[in-house]
Amino acid sequence: MIKIGIVGYGNIGKGAVRAVEAASDMELVAVFTRRKQGLFDCGFDKYPFLAIEEAKNMIDDIDVMLLCGGSAADLPEQTPYFASMFNTVDSYDNHAEIPGYITSIDAVAKDKVAIVSTGWDPGLFSMMRLLYESVLPDGSTYTFYGRGVSQGHSNAIRKVAGVIDAVQYTVPIESAVNEARSGAAPVLEARQRMMRECYVVVEPAAEKDAIESTIKTMPHYFSDYDTTVTFVDEHELREKHSKMSHGGLVLRSGNTDYNKHLMEFSLNLDSNPQFTANIMVAYARAAYRMSKEGAFGAKTVFDVPPVYLSETDRDESIKNLL
Amino acid sequence: MIKIGIVGYGNIGKGAVRAVEAASDMELVAVFTRRKQGLFDCGFDKYPFLAIEEAKNMIDDIDVMLLCGGSAADLPEQTPYFASMFNTVDSYDNHAEIPGYITSIDAVAKDKVAIVSTGWDPGLFSMMRLLYESVLPDGSTYTFYGRGVSQGHSNAIRKVAGVIDAVQYTVPIESAVNEARSGAAPVLEARQRMMRECYVVVEPAAEKDAIESTIKTMPHYFSDYDTTVTFVDEHELREKHSKMSHGGLVLRSGNTDYNKHLMEFSLNLDSNPQFTANIMVAYARAAYRMSKEGAFGAKTVFDVPPVYLSETDRDESIKNLL
Repeated sequence: MIKIGIVGYGNIGKGAVRAVEAASDMELVAVFTRRKQGLFDCGFDKYPFLAIEEAKNMIDDIDVMLLCGGSAADLPEQTPYFASMFNTVDSYDNHAEIPGYITSIDAVAKDKVAIVSTGWDPGLFSMMRLLYESVLPDGSTYTFYGRGVSQGHSNAIRKVAGVIDAVQYTVPIESAVNEARSGAAPVLEARQRMMRECYVVVEPAAEKDAIESTIKTMPHYFSDYDTTVTFVDEHELREKHSKMSHGGLVLRSGNTDYNKHLMEFSLNLDSNPQFTANIMVAYARAAYRMSKEGAFGAKTVFDVPPVYLSETDRDESIKNLL
Repeated sequence: MIKIGIVGYGNIGKGAVRAVEAASDMELVAVFTRRKQGLFDCGFDKYPFLAIEEAKNMIDDIDVMLLCGGSAADLPEQTPYFASMFNTVDSYDNHAEIPGYITSIDAVAKDKVAIVSTGWDPGLFSMMRLLYESVLPDGSTYTFYGRGVSQGHSNAIRKVAGVIDAVQYTVPIESAVNEARSGAAPVLEARQRMMRECYVVVEPAAEKDAIESTIKTMPHYFSDYDTTVTFVDEHELREKHSKMSHGGLVLRSGNTDYNKHLMEFSLNLDSNPQFTANIMVAYARAAYRMSKEGAFGAKTVFDVPPVYLSETDRDESIKNLL
């Protein structure tokens, strides 16, 4: 059994508890958190909930630590700290900062494996982009996000005066997807690839026209996109728009000789955090196995042989899946 | 530069020549064939075309041998022979025989790397099936082939009396694809997943009704499927049906908690052999790198870290693709 610790108990941390429970080759040792222990209503009281500071005393008790904190504030601090003591897996998603992040972690993961930036983008989508370029060198790769909830854009709407609550969906523009598929190799800016759908609950006396205009003209978030605003009541928002759904697709259109080829990978997810947690748990298995081989340091999805992700024995996978 | 040899000069071998030429980190040393050298009209006379027997004298001249022969007669004999002397890559596609094939090759590839059963199925689709199960353990995986040309079924039609030429397309049944996507976890037999479209050229005096009936009732090949027969003239067959197009998709529908998730990977290929050759060339790069690390023996797509497939340096890939 691979002994797992979880750091952080937000949406991804909760998904990770569930995913570890579903894995027959893993056991959950503890969840580490900054919150006070007494505040939990988690349904998982069979696991110890410990302060983060206690982790350093449990180095021999935990094989892999799943770092489920946020990329903005938690991971840049937590991952180097934990990677010096434990094998780790995280879902750090600040694309521009990843190279520096990897360097800082590689420096401390001397006898541990730290698999960084797993999840689906960065993560599975990144793996596809690398695979695509490798097998179809002459071509163009496109990534489209959605249909799915953007927390950042939802929060931006919530700050508008008169707004009680809001959910924003990022929606890929189908005509742009088809143009990318066509092999015409179009140049597509973000605004040409996606539009924004907003579902907004306002106070009874709010002026809807003014709020709609404020949203649609909001710089950076909405002004550069085709944006729709639909006013709904709180009941409808809760019933129809409470799932943290997301998804997207990454495709490559290219050529060999005079022949066209199209490769496409898509995800359609009811729960973005639960799916992300599932991916992290698969990479925890890989981190454990790579540590047994002494393949230490900061690793990415590019570095992991697929067989290390699977609960199934290699011979069985060859027989049943190859 | 990685020095490449190619064994076999059929459709995949020709695609491999092209793919090696397109790779900036490879050079083609020679093509080995059983045919007489004087018979080639290949357009690649800058490369030596040698008899297969000469390969054993060129062990120091070639880093990786691409084995482009057929799975029925060539590879079961050629791969063990070559894997004892060279790093090899093949596209052996007899699914049921793969475990035994791997055992026989592993026994001889003592100080060489032999990556077997690359291509897209087995190959990329297999990798997706493994990845899918690993990140979404609770679910069902479905593989659909087509729309694409089946050489075996085309040949079966050509043997019917009165038939001059024929092309058969395997076509996935869209309603079955959507049922698989739905999360209802349907059990779908082959006949429920695909239908067969036949384009047939017959002799002037042929009885078309009788030929159509013979095709549609042919055991094993057509009787178990919804089959359409369209009679065309030789000109139309050549103009519209001469490409070796193929494709397919592999999807997994599954759950975490009460949430549904769908993962899907699809290929739409104008030239099946050229795309297969491209994949083999990417795995040749991996075989070369793994041999430098001493990771000898029979390997599959499950065993290869994605970064080994890429012509691009790891740091660059992390920066641009992760």
